[in-house]
Order: sequence, then C-alpha cells, then structure tokens
Amino acid sequence: MASSPSFLLLAALLALVSWQAIASDPVRVNGFVCKNPMEVNADDFFKAAALDKPRVTNKVGSNVTLINVMQIAGLNTLGISIARIDYAPLGQNPPHTHPRATEILTVLEGTLYVGFVTSNLPAPARNKFFSKVLNKGDVFVFPVGLIHFQFNPNPHQPAVAIAALSSQNPGAITIANAVFGSDPPISDDVLAKAFQVEKNTIDWLQAQFWENNHN
Amino acid sequence: MASSPSFLLLAALLALVSWQAIASDPVRVNGFVCKNPMEVNADDFFKAAALDKPRVTNKVGSNVTLINVMQIAGLNTLGISIARIDYAPLGQNPPHTHPRATEILTVLEGTLYVGFVTSNLPAPARNKFFSKVLNKGDVFVFPVGLIHFQFNPNPHQPAVAIAALSSQNPGAITIANAVFGSDPPISDDVLAKAFQVEKNTIDWLQAQFWENNHN
Amino acid sequence: MASSPSFLLLAALLALVSWQAIASDPVRVNGFVCKNPMEVNADDFFKAAALDKPRVTNKVGSNVTLINVMQIAGLNTLGISIARIDYAPLGQNPPHTHPRATEILTVLEGTLYVGFVTSNLPAPARNKFFSKVLNKGDVFVFPVGLIHFQFNPNPHQPAVAIAALSSQNPGAITIANAVFGSDPPISDDVLAKAFQVEKNTIDWLQAQFWENNHN
Amino acid sequence: MASSPSFLLLAALLALVSWQAIASDPVRVNGFVCKNPMEVNADDFFKAAALDKPRVTNKVGSNVTLINVMQIAGLNTLGISIARIDYAPLGQNPPHTHPRATEILTVLEGTLYVGFVTSNLPAPARNKFFSKVLNKGDVFVFPVGLIHFQFNPNPHQPAVAIAALSSQNPGAITIANAVFGSDPPISDDVLAKAFQVEKNTIDWLQAQFWENNHN
Amino acid sequence: MASSPSFLLLAALLALVSWQAIASDPVRVNGFVCKNPMEVNADDFFKAAALDKPRVTNKVGSNVTLINVMQIAGLNTLGISIARIDYAPLGQNPPHTHPRATEILTVLEGTLYVGFVTSNLPAPARNKFFSKVLNKGDVFVFPVGLIHFQFNPNPHQPAVAIAALSSQNPGAITIANAVFGSDPPISDDVLAKAFQVEKNTIDWLQAQFWENNHN
Amino acid sequence: MASSPSFLLLAALLALVSWQAIASDPVRVNGFVCKNPMEVNADDFFKAAALDKPRVTNKVGSNVTLINVMQIAGLNTLGISIARIDYAPLGQNPPHTHPRATEILTVLEGTLYVGFVTSNLPAPARNKFFSKVLNKGDVFVFPVGLIHFQFNPNPHQPAVAIAALSSQNPGAITIANAVFGSDPPISDDVLAKAFQVEKNTIDWLQAQFWENNHN
Repeated sequence: MASSPSFLLLAALLALVSWQAIASDPVRVNGFVCKNPMEVNADDFFKAAALDKPRVTNKVGSNVTLINVMQIAGLNTLGISIARIDYAPLGQNPPHTHPRATEILTVLEGTLYVGFVTSNLPAPARNKFFSKVLNKGDVFVFPVGLIHFQFNPNPHQPAVAIAALSSQNPGAITIANAVFGSDPPISDDVLAKAFQVEKNTIDWLQAQFWENNHN
Repeated sequence: MASSPSFLLLAALLALVSWQAIASDPVRVNGFVCKNPMEVNADDFFKAAALDKPRVTNKVGSNVTLINVMQIAGLNTLGISIARIDYAPLGQNPPHTHPRATEILTVLEGTLYVGFVTSNLPAPARNKFFSKVLNKGDVFVFPVGLIHFQFNPNPHQPAVAIAALSSQNPGAITIANAVFGSDPPISDDVLAKAFQVEKNTIDWLQAQFWENNHN
Repeated sequence: MASSPSFLLLAALLALVSWQAIASDPVRVNGFVCKNPMEVNADDFFKAAALDKPRVTNKVGSNVTLINVMQIAGLNTLGISIARIDYAPLGQNPPHTHPRATEILTVLEGTLYVGFVTSNLPAPARNKFFSKVLNKGDVFVFPVGLIHFQFNPNPHQPAVAIAALSSQNPGAITIANAVFGSDPPISDDVLAKAFQVEKNTIDWLQAQFWENNHN
Repeated sequence: MASSPSFLLLAALLALVSWQAIASDPVRVNGFVCKNPMEVNADDFFKAAALDKPRVTNKVGSNVTLINVMQIAGLNTLGISIARIDYAPLGQNPPHTHPRATEILTVLEGTLYVGFVTSNLPAPARNKFFSKVLNKGDVFVFPVGLIHFQFNPNPHQPAVAIAALSSQNPGAITIANAVFGSDPPISDDVLAKAFQVEKNTIDWLQAQFWENNHN
Repeated sequence: MASSPSFLLLAALLALVSWQAIASDPVRVNGFVCKNPMEVNADDFFKAAALDKPRVTNKVGSNVTLINVMQIAGLNTLGISIARIDYAPLGQNPPHTHPRATEILTVLEGTLYVGFVTSNLPAPARNKFFSKVLNKGDVFVFPVGLIHFQFNPNPHQPAVAIAALSSQNPGAITIANAVFGSDPPISDDVLAKAFQVEKNTIDWLQAQFWENNHN
Repeated sequence: MASSPSFLLLAALLALVSWQAIASDPVRVNGFVCKNPMEVNADDFFKAAALDKPRVTNKVGSNVTLINVMQIAGLNTLGISIARIDYAPLGQNPPHTHPRATEILTVLEGTLYVGFVTSNLPAPARNKFFSKVLNKGDVFVFPVGLIHFQFNPNPHQPAVAIAALSSQNPGAITIANAVFGSDPPISDDVLAKAFQVEKNTIDWLQAQFWENNHN
C-alpha cells in the first residue's frame, strides 16, 4: 500500500469511488476510470437534466433514456440505475430482456399495456404470458432476464414511465434486432428451423432489419 | 422432492415466485408467504394506483410511499424497490439511512436541495457533506448506508420525486427519531456525551420526540 | 432454536442440506423440500444414468437433459448444474437465453456451429454476433442472459455436448416459443411492430407455434 | 492474457492476492495496489502489535483500532476485519453505524452497556431500542447499518472489547459528527426541522462540533 | 401476504429476524427456526459468558468455542461469527479448513506459531507454506478454504486467541480426522496411493483415529 | 469517463469483457488483462481442442485439464469453469478441495468410485463419508470446500469424466501434497501431533513428497 493513509481512508469511506493513484496511471474498478477521492464531489453522484424532457421516439415509437454508471460514475458497484421511457401514441418499447437486472416501472403519464413471458415450462405447457394495463401511478415488475415489453395503446396520447433496474449496468437485448438484425446475420438455416418458417421469410426479415433498424 | 414435476418446474422458471406445496403448509422464502406457482399471475408483479397521487405530508413535510416486497410479493429476492416522495413547501425527508440499499432519485416536480454525508475520515478531516440543488429531471445517488436527506426549499410549491432502492426490503432509519425517539429511550448519559450537550438538553429532545413524532 | 444441538450441527456442516424438523412440517430452503440431515446420504448428491444415453430429439432436432436442483436436491444453494445435449443431423438447440446462468459447453461427439449475440450497442452499431465451429473437445462460453444457439451442420451424423450452467436453477427461454407461442399469445399489434411485419404474418407464426410447438 | 502461465497460476491460487504485471503498471483490485504473487509472503496476511496495548481514548472516552484492508493488504475481497476498542471509565463508542458490515463484539475486560436501534416501524410504533449489559466473555451482535453504541458504565475501571466486522472495509459513521460536524455543515434549516428544535440550538450544536470534535 | 402490515414491517426492519406466522407453523430462513418479530428482543443478539473462561483442551491441546448462528439466532444471514480458542502448552488447533469462511485471528495471551498453505501451483512449484510467530496483539488472516493451523510453541504457558469468521456458519474440517477418521473410513487403497504409503500404514493411521479421536 | 460512448457501451453490453483504454495502460478486472471491446471476438470465449484427447496421467494415475479464466479470458466474473479428468486403470484424483467452488461431475467412460467427507460433527460423531460407484452418465456433486476424490477401480480400463466448477478460478488443494509436500515444509512437531504419529513418520512422509511429488 504505497498511498498515504488519508488518501486511502477517504477512498474507503465512500467505497464506491475509486481513485487515481498517480497522474499517469488511472485506476479502474469494473473497468471504469476512477477519481482521486480528494477530488470526488457531489457531481460524481449527479446528472443534470437527465430525465426531464420528452425525447424523440424511434421507429417503433419509444425512447429509453438510461442513467447508469456511464452517466454517473459514482454508481459503480452500487447495483442500481434509472431510466425515463417515452412512448409515442401506439408506440412500444419492443420485446427485450435485461441480462443482468430486474426492472420495476411506474407510469407517469398515459397508459401502458405491459407484459412478460415466463421461462420454458415442461411440455405440453407453454411459456406463460403475464400482462396488465397500467395507468398513472401503477407499478409493475419485470424479473431479471425475462422477455418483456411496454406498449402505449392510446392512438392519440403519448405516455411516460420511470423504470429502475437492479444493476449499474443492466444491458438490454431487443429480441427482434438481436435475432434478425445482428452483425453479421445469424444463419438463415438456423433461424428458419427455429421459427418454423421458410428461409426466404427469414431472409426477408433480416433484410428489413438491415435496411431499417437502428435501435 | 415430493411435488410433481410440472409443479416444481414452473416454480423454477420464475425463480422469484415461491409456492404453497400443501394448503396447510404455506411456504416462505425470506420469510414471505409464497403462492402455488400454478396460481401465480400478473397481479403478483403489480400494484395499482401505488404512486399516482400526492399524499398528505407528515410533520416535517414529507411522505414516502414505498413499494417493496410487502406490496408486491413477486419482488422477493429481486433486489429492487421504488418509491414516490411528496414534499410540502419547505418540507423535508429528514436525515436518514437505508441499511441495505443505495438510492437513486429523480425529481418529477419542483426543486429539491439534497445531500449526503460521507463516512468518518481520519482526523483532523471531518465527514464531508456533498449537496446539490435538483430540478425536474435531475438524478442523484445516495450510496448505501450513508446519511442523506431531501429538502424542498420552495416556500410556496410542493415537490415530488421518484426514488429507486437496490433492495426489495431496504429499510429506513430516521436519525432524529432513532436517536431521540426510540422505545425505550437511549440513556441520556450516553446521548449527552455523544452530542456534547447537557443531559437536560437530551431529556428535552427526547420529550419532544415522545410527544410529537410518529414518523 | 428448538432443535437438539447435534441435529443443528449436522445441518450446519453440510450447509447445503436442509432438513425436516418435524414429520408434519417439511422445511424448505429456496422453496425446495429438505431432509432431516441425519437421513442425508450420498443419494442426495447423485443421479444415476442421467446423461449416458442419446435421447430422442424434438422437432428442431435437439434434446436437452438438464440435471439441476430438481433432480439432485443436494445442489440447492450451490450455484451449478450440468446438461447433456443431443443433436440430430442438422438439428439445433434453437436461439434461447438462460436468465440466471452463464453456460460453458464442450463437444463430445460431432461438430457444432455455435454463437451468441451481444446486448444492444449504440446506433448505428448493431448487436454483434459471435460464432464458431466447434469440434470434439472444443470449449465455448455463452455469457449470462445472452441469446445463443447450437446447430449441428452435419447432415448425416448426430452430435453430443456437455454443458454446465452457473446456477442450480438456470431457467431457459426459447426465443421463438416465448415470443410466438406463449399462453396466452402476445398481442399481434405489439409483435407486428416489433418485428416490422404485417399482423397476418404474426398471426400465421403464432398459429404455427400453437399447432406444432411443444418445446 | 499476456502473462506467463506460472505467473497467472499463482495469482489464481491465492485468489486474494493480485499482482503487478509490469513494474511501471501497478495492478489494483477494489482500488488497492497489488503485489507480484511471486513476492507475496506471510507479511501480506499479518499485522504486528496491532491490538495488544491500551490506547489513549478520545474526548468521548474510547479508541477504536481497526485492522482492515488498509493495514493487511491480503484481506482484499475476503469480507472481514477486526478491531480492538478501548473504553475509559464512563467512556463510550458513541452512536454510529457501519454502512457495509455487521459487527460481532466480545468483552475482554470490564463491563459494557451496549445497544442498537431498529429501523423505522409503521406509526404509531417507534424504533425499538435493544440493549444489554455485557460482562467479560459475553457476545453481542450489531446488524448491518443499524445505529449502535457501547458505553462503559464503570466510573473507575476501563473496559476493552474485540469486535469483528463482516467487510474488509466496513466504514463507520459517527452520528453526532456526521449530522452536526460535517464539512461543510448541513443547513440549520434542515436540521432544525428534523430535530424539532430552534435553529440557534442547531447552530450551537454545530459550533460545538466544529470547535471540539475530531473523531 | 396474509399477515398484518405491522407484523410484516417489523420483520422487514430487522431483515435478519424472521418470524413465526402461526403458532403451529414455525418459519425458517436458511433452515433455522425464526421468531415472531414482536417477540424479538436483545436476547436474540446476545450470548452470555460465551468466551470468558479457559476451557479444557482436547487431546491435541486446543479447544475452539465458536459462537455462530446456532448460539445466536440473530446472526442468521449476517455473514459473521466469532470464536475463542484455548491452547495448552505445546497444544495445537490442528491443520483444518473452513469451507465457507475466511478467518482473522488475534492473540490475547501467549504465543502462537501459525500458518497456511496455498492452493496447488503448476509443477514443479509446490504449495507454498506461509507462517508467522504471533505475540499478543498480532493479527493474522487465513483465507477462505485454505489449510491452516495454530500451534502454541511454549512448553509451559497456555495461549488464547480470538478469531472471527466471515460466515454465520463457517464449518470446519480437521484434515487428519476427515481423511483418516471418517465414518465409514475412506478406502485404504485410495489413501495409500494418495499419501504414497503402504496400505498397512493407512490401516494403522485409521485405527488410531478410530480409537482415539473425537474431535 | 474519458472514453467515447460507443466504446463504453460495448463494454457494458458484454459486462464480462473489459478493455484497454490506452495502448500503454492495460486494464484489468480481477487482475486479468482485458481487451479493447472493439477487438473482442468469438476467440475470447473459445478454447480449441481443450478437452478432446486422453492425457498422460500423473504418478497417482490421473490428469485434470481445467479450462478456467486463464484459458478463456471471457470467463472473467462469470462464475464457471469446466474440466476433463483422465484416470488410468486404478488411478485416482486424490483427496483434495476446491476452496472457491462446488463441483458437479459426470462419467464419460469407465467407472469411478467417488466420495466426499462432511465437515466436523459434534463429538462423538465423526466426519461422515459419502461415496458412490459411478457408471457412464451418472452425475455426482462435491459441495464447496469439502474433501473429495475419484478413483478408477478398474485394473484394466481407463476412465474419463467431465466436471464443472462454480467459479472461473476455483483453485485446488491436494491434501497430501499441501500437508506433507509444502515449500517450506510444515513443522513435523505440528504434523506429528495432528496425525497422531511419531515425528519420524512425518519426516519420512515429507521426504517422500519432496522426492516424488510434483502434482
């Protein structure tokens, strides 16, 4: 332990703020650059104007603004992040999973039709689909790793939700994009059999995603 | 494993829904009663009208509505909860800690002056106080176990925030109440020396909390 | 602690074997029925003839035999399970995720074309697809929660793999079945937009899965 | 993996000793500088004369000597630390919390009056205060994050305790200092309302802590 | 959730105290019987006269008095325990491991020669043995799962140590007893080859342990 | 956070692949060198020809080929590894522990006699020995930290097993080597008393291990 005691102690107090021991040698925890704790301040736990404004929605009618460890360095190791999600009328946050987090969501404005699908069940049971229409102030939970979505059924009004996730770096996998729009594409032989369709259907789907989709 | 395979498998799929094996023997995980997974449904992940309405604030001018595993049984083991906090004009969510969770907060309405205090530093350094004025859409993080508060500095307007916590059962300890209002009271000998005041000052503080405080 | 000391101590030694305190009151940890530790024996850590024989493959040409906590009660809390996977010629273990486990796989017989897709990247980047052809004795890793598959490209020979998962109850979500074959079905409005196709394409896909698919 | 196999393997064996790959690039885990494992030795798990002697107590009559990862580098990632606490006659280790650890304490000499306060309970219940008088050899537990203290009620004899904490870096927050002695001070508006006293009482308390307190 | 709110909330506050929902149905967490939280009190976190007195040492000259979750129910889930170890002159706490805990030890009286052996290294390196002579107040760490011992080299004076372990239920495996004294014995064919000795040497060792050893 | 967004996001997606921020400053997580995520590819999750071939067995008749984070960098933080174990006729994988992992094993070829010993029980009970003869396809579990072995009882045929471990870096401690073959040797005073034998028996055992044993 080459550092001076007080230097180390402040680091220890916060336990979430790592530091830069020597100017030429940035320290990282979980791969993220850390600061000298003597230079840590409230800004390391703060993001201004992060979630206040409606944002332009994408082609499926949603926009997820996630505040995680990449926006707030002080979140490192703390196991939580927060997001605002905007939904256009009839917009959706399409079926996706978070590989490393459970999500809890509440509606701020409008209405959402939400749901998740359970893991596989022994045949002949099918994966169960649990859904709910959420109004302002309702709360819903999407367990870690399960496929879920939110859809704004209102053709005229947008919707807004706040969601929290149980990781400082939850990740997201949009199913349609990951399956049909990856780079390079997954073999159409594989997908045709998996989705029980002709290969040219797969080819057409993949072409769609290559032309149109930038999640 | 006395249960039938399909019974067990559904339980396994969700991994968050425990179950009741026999009517007369309710099963618990983490001490919470669990349901037969065949009877699990969307309601186990849902709480209606949980966070939509302003609620009457308490004597220090705030009201925390926490949705945790006690409101949504499906949260068990998933490590997250969510809260709405209402602040009266000049109201505060007074200095407190969460013994088992980090908190991330965003302002929905109004303005909040927020802060937290670091752990002890080696003398002669003092505990550092990090604070920030938050406007709508700003995000702030309160690391696990640190003393923090939110205060609405506006004498005319209320404020509203959404906070998420990294536990399905984060706990909360309001410092003033725990120190001066516990049942039974902490010895005034101990508190007088700790707070560097006369015993009758402590006695007076404790009397205040016994008369007035029901957090 | 009502139990006798020696009773409790044996339980403690194993730390993985729970027990039945009273005949009429089966104890569970994680929801699984536990045994009196005085009755625990090697059979609680053993499964005979679990993974030795080729098994009949399903309609997409694979069969996963998973030995998890439901087959070996002693696995409870230990964070690991093991599987044998059989592949027919041109068969596949179709795109799926494990919501609670990373998988490590080695080929015992034949050849497998395997791959996984990363989480979403910032536009305009697409989800990356990493793939590899595996021969006997090769090892590949599928990180927790990511969509992955294995495909036997050989039209004449079957293939066999052993896979281990980092959970005693990893779960599995077959993407095609969960998206198009759930019970009840996900709204075709939602899926049509998510997959950028006409609703009748979705309806047709869902019908396929309702007629044919029992994963 | 640029390093030579044997270099990496030794690192792996210990799993707690990280190392310095190149002289100019010190490696850290959790932010602590690590050693070349070939140079690891018993001294990395050892601290001489750490807890043997009575130490001068502070102004509230105690002295905590904590041996954590900053004193013994080999503790990194291992989740434990140990302390000796000296108490003057009528001295106390004042109300404090450990944000990241449970504490277990045993008395070596003298008598201690100890206690902790539970988290908030639903109104009208108050935070419960659990206390006990401990004599030599008694053991008491202070659960993670809860406010607790130890007080030596004997006006003539000192006391000594050994405490262990469930983290290699538990942190400590002395309540009075953190609330009334932080740098900069917490607003007296906030504290006056929180503690139900006049602002000048807060000002006076804060002045006390600025003049006198160096924990 | 069948229980009344206040009932559940108290349980939640402590987070370590589970409870008995109905008189006829004791609840357990980790398999340990829990109390109604309304009946929880300081005694659930307390053990009187646990570690104060020298205790009669066993045939190898030591006596470990461990205070874990079986002595203090409130330790459940909190990840720590504490022990007093008495050593006769020339006595030892023989080579053993803790399968689920790191140990940190300090000497209260006398002198101890202590050490641990690292995990296997790549040939031709051997397992390293790290040792130290400890005097009163010295602190030493035994990392999780590694073989370690303490020996009192003084032929005339006893020694005493306090050790803390990073689990509420650490377990202990005395190597000699587990290898040569198990019930039933391990095959002498296996042990002879493992220890590179004749089978009759193993048989003789096993006979010794069956006659004499009751750890 | 100095890095460009897309750089950071890819890192985030994988969550297991760290990266090299600047050519001159390799980043490590858990002490392992990480790659620029833009350069991550399928090879980081792959090891060719790792487990396909029988390997020459050592002097006790076995050979463990472990594929862990040192062979596949992408395993870092993922908590799993896999091994092939070859057994000569009458060969054994001698009594050992894994300090940081549970093991699950299945037999590919031949027959194995396997077993583990429980932790210490309260006297007069002895450590229990649980054993089983495994044939092809049988599965057995060795809980974390417990002493276990596998022995091929067939004098004419080799055996082969696949084992998975619940850590990317499980470690292994061969009991005989760690106790009698460490560098430097453990004091024969200590071992003689622990194993209840004469010092010259210990000396002879240690000499054996120094001459012959290179695990």
